[in-house]
Amino acid sequence: MDIYCLMFEDYETLDLMGAVEFLSRIPEVVLHYVSQNGGTVRSKQGFFVQTEALTVMKPGSVLLVPGGQGTRKLVSDTAFLNCLAEWVSQAQVCLAVCTGSALLAAADCLSGVKATSNKRAFEWVKSVNPAVDWQPVARWERDGKFYTSSGVSAGMDMALGFIADRFGFELAEEIAAHTEYRWQNNPATDEFAKLYGYK
Amino acid sequence: MDIYCLMFEDYETLDLMGAVEFLSRIPEVVLHYVSQNGGTVRSKQGFFVQTEALTVMKPGSVLLVPGGQGTRKLVSDTAFLNCLAEWVSQAQVCLAVCTGSALLAAADCLSGVKATSNKRAFEWVKSVNPAVDWQPVARWERDGKFYTSSGVSAGMDMALGFIADRFGFELAEEIAAHTEYRWQNNPATDEFAKLYGYK
Repeated sequence: MDIYCLMFEDYETLDLMGAVEFLSRIPEVVLHYVSQNGGTVRSKQGFFVQTEALTVMKPGSVLLVPGGQGTRKLVSDTAFLNCLAEWVSQAQVCLAVCTGSALLAAADCLSGVKATSNKRAFEWVKSVNPAVDWQPVARWERDGKFYTSSGVSAGMDMALGFIADRFGFELAEEIAAHTEYRWQNNPATDEFAKLYGYK
Repeated sequence: MDIYCLMFEDYETLDLMGAVEFLSRIPEVVLHYVSQNGGTVRSKQGFFVQTEALTVMKPGSVLLVPGGQGTRKLVSDTAFLNCLAEWVSQAQVCLAVCTGSALLAAADCLSGVKATSNKRAFEWVKSVNPAVDWQPVARWERDGKFYTSSGVSAGMDMALGFIADRFGFELAEEIAAHTEYRWQNNPATDEFAKLYGYK
């Protein structure tokens, strides 16, 4: 399985790297670190990673989309959004962490789709595209080929949820044990929504 | 505060990036991405990050040391260990995640110091230097300027623990809430030790 990890300026580090840690432990997986134009890309936390320009994904691929400060600009970047819509159409599965779902929504990939996002940024995310069936209380949501998670750390729970759905609960539990990760494995349990008044 | 994030070939991604996510949210912090010789460094998960060569740290600095597959070679790399011992002597605080503590032990920085490590690799870690006061049941340990954590994900709990000790519990809780992280804030609670027979 090929997984394309999308980077852009000011993506949030753990949105991407938390999921990367767990997804990299799927047997025979290949991770690709990609961006719209290739070259080095800076995370919000200030380090630079080498990326390849993403053009065509292999059949059966997974696209991983982080969120972060950089999404605030990208939701108005038509050239980027056109590329994103094309990548999404090629992907068999899309995993969006935190405000990564705002990018999918801006690229018009989520109309009528159940999705969630960071709870602290939730009103902004909803405003990007109200045609999405936004879920205010969810650690993560799965609807068709789309997985979307709540803020930052929720992407780790979702990545393990995807692994459980696709490769079995046992592999997800084994990965959590090997990484000493306290997996919150119920997508409906969201202890952070209430901090922002969502019920 | 200056935090030096040490990279080496085949460090484990989340060991470093989990702590980076939380430490980057300390007010007025500066993160430095460094390695022994500078240049690009590859994580176990296959991406390349640009680093600066670490020589002298600013006074009052924190050194963050991840673990991972790369530590197996480095515990026998005298040149690296000599550098590490020097950096540790300069640091005001050392945070070692997972088998990062094996590197500190190999560099002879932890004799008589209470420390912990990844539980799956614990027997190997102990064998690196039995003069350390190894703790088989701990999410993380603090002893003097040294913080050491259990495997991979435990580094995130420890990073927040360090923030709580140094900047107050409230800031650590706020960072956990903003990143929707389910912080396990008791260093003595280790639910993974028993998987490997440690009591």
